[in-house]
Amino acid sequence: MPFTQTDQKYMQRAIELAKKGRFTTSPNPNVGCVITLNDEIVGEGFHLKAGAGHAEVNALAMAKEKSLGATCYVTLEPCSHFGRTPPCALALVKAGVKRVVIAMVDPNPKVAGRGISILEEAGIIVEVGLLTAQAEQLNLGFITRMKFKRPRITVKMASSLDGKTALKNGESKWITGKAARADVQYFRAQQSAILTGINTVLLDNPSLNVRYQELINSPQITPELLPEANVRQPIRILLDSNNKLTLQEHLFSLPGKVLIVSLTARDRSDFDLCTADVEQIICPKNDLNKIDLHELMSLLNQYEINDLWVEAGATLAGELFKCDLVDEFILYQAIKLMGDQSRSLVNLPHFSTMNDIIKLKLQSVVQIGDDIRLINHRE
Amino acid sequence: MPFTQTDQKYMQRAIELAKKGRFTTSPNPNVGCVITLNDEIVGEGFHLKAGAGHAEVNALAMAKEKSLGATCYVTLEPCSHFGRTPPCALALVKAGVKRVVIAMVDPNPKVAGRGISILEEAGIIVEVGLLTAQAEQLNLGFITRMKFKRPRITVKMASSLDGKTALKNGESKWITGKAARADVQYFRAQQSAILTGINTVLLDNPSLNVRYQELINSPQITPELLPEANVRQPIRILLDSNNKLTLQEHLFSLPGKVLIVSLTARDRSDFDLCTADVEQIICPKNDLNKIDLHELMSLLNQYEINDLWVEAGATLAGELFKCDLVDEFILYQAIKLMGDQSRSLVNLPHFSTMNDIIKLKLQSVVQIGDDIRLINHRE
Repeated sequence: MPFTQTDQKYMQRAIELAKKGRFTTSPNPNVGCVITLNDEIVGEGFHLKAGAGHAEVNALAMAKEKSLGATCYVTLEPCSHFGRTPPCALALVKAGVKRVVIAMVDPNPKVAGRGISILEEAGIIVEVGLLTAQAEQLNLGFITRMKFKRPRITVKMASSLDGKTALKNGESKWITGKAARADVQYFRAQQSAILTGINTVLLDNPSLNVRYQELINSPQITPELLPEANVRQPIRILLDSNNKLTLQEHLFSLPGKVLIVSLTARDRSDFDLCTADVEQIICPKNDLNKIDLHELMSLLNQYEINDLWVEAGATLAGELFKCDLVDEFILYQAIKLMGDQSRSLVNLPHFSTMNDIIKLKLQSVVQIGDDIRLINHRE
Repeated sequence: MPFTQTDQKYMQRAIELAKKGRFTTSPNPNVGCVITLNDEIVGEGFHLKAGAGHAEVNALAMAKEKSLGATCYVTLEPCSHFGRTPPCALALVKAGVKRVVIAMVDPNPKVAGRGISILEEAGIIVEVGLLTAQAEQLNLGFITRMKFKRPRITVKMASSLDGKTALKNGESKWITGKAARADVQYFRAQQSAILTGINTVLLDNPSLNVRYQELINSPQITPELLPEANVRQPIRILLDSNNKLTLQEHLFSLPGKVLIVSLTARDRSDFDLCTADVEQIICPKNDLNKIDLHELMSLLNQYEINDLWVEAGATLAGELFKCDLVDEFILYQAIKLMGDQSRSLVNLPHFSTMNDIIKLKLQSVVQIGDDIRLINHRE
């Protein structure tokens, strides 16, 4: 069915509203909702975080009695289940809306279409498929988790123009500049979890957290858009196959959740002195006696991780590419040359023909300070 | 002195005219000229190629008697010497122009200011310095040659995102796509000379020429802008320290000039069977018994090379960077990963601190087909 320009305008607004939740909704999806009556917005809402009102409920609360006979634009199919809140589909029926326009169906195969059924059974006109591609962009991680029972995986790296990440002696501070590092904070703040390998932890002793003081250096962030109190620390996930972590590493002294992934269990009492909320998960190994990354991603599903941000070294990045587990590859490049004797970006098997190399698809390239940032997707 | 918006407009037009010569003027500079009378353009001209009329002469020819009392906008100081044509400064005096606006002074220290003196001595109002930066961009190579007695050097390379140029076994065809290769043709067509090293010649057997059929795939080129007959083949310069070339290599069967740079002379009769016009120059060696690149650039000065385009392998590129002889570094990056076992972009000495690595300054980054092109300058 053809949508009007008016429909487009209101759905576009609903998408903008949905984006406001992007730092806080995980593990829930980002959803925006606009209610109109006689070509006038009478209610608006978005989902801020788990436990808070859904977008439709918030919009209905604003519209009050004006929802009677109204049109409702919502970026995701209204929910049909009793969860933390009653189902939104029922709330829309109860409020007496006349027509519901939906950008995309719920990606969860178990629930997809049920919200729509509730509405239709109540005699509401339901139209699906307006600005679907944009709506999907709001929830790439949520969609991946629902469809494939694993998080959406973004690998982030930084290198010189000649693809080097550190000098031979390991020195690497700093390849990229302050603006690029603030940009990383902007991405980190939107993730469900940040994963890295044991070598990065032992070598760099990173915090792997979101630092508000750096974050607000990012031009995309203002205190109005993201007040400090709304910053949600992603789960930190550390791959430590053979229990090499001493637990004295810096990140264990910071609040928030840490998941250690190992092949064998360590004494739980080890974690008692950590400020962080530490948990160990034991992962099956692959043929090479290493953590099986496919198995790991399935295990992570129970933690409801939509978006997984990997700050990887050359080995882990290579393993993820080999397993075809990289949905997005973000590379910050400094306009510098480090030479053939420096360390290479990604460890891959020996290729004997150009057909075998890894091909990606450029999504965007922009200058960030003195550096550039490339966002690439699976081809 | 303050220039008016009208002045700006006409000088901008003169700059656009100058650009039309960029495929053909070498070794001469690009120059454009606009003559106005009563705020109306009465003459326009640009320099097409050595031996053809200078920009001012062409504009005067169009203006005819309307040059009396006119204003002349010219991107470069009018010449003062009798060369292939009589001095343009005298021609302007003779034509009775009232005022001459000049974007930039002649960069040749031996002649700078003489053209201006001739005009001023004839009572013409001369104003210098309008849109100077833009005018300099027209003639970066010419300016470098005049000031430093060497060509302006652009190093062009192509690599994967992880800075690799070939597989371990040497295979590299093709890292970048058709559009990037057409773009290279667009740049080649504007060069005075193309230089490469012996290894590239022996490995790739390249033509190192401008191929019109590929060139017109570049979106910047149309047959109107550059008719096939106007394509000028840059001089091909091959670094062959120890006379390893067999002269059976493909490029010797193509017409045009080839300069072989060696440390010792070979028999001149070797060249008799080549279709190309081959010449050998003997270059002094450096402390490592290799071609001294600084000496080479001075030697090239006698060939009036403004813009030297280097299609280098990792060794030659590294040597040029070490000698601080890279004015511009153009990198085509394919959105691909080739892994740590593939060949690195540039051979540089071992660096023990990040302060020692090579830093460049990004001028632009754009997508070209599936690849990206970065233009970088010396920091």
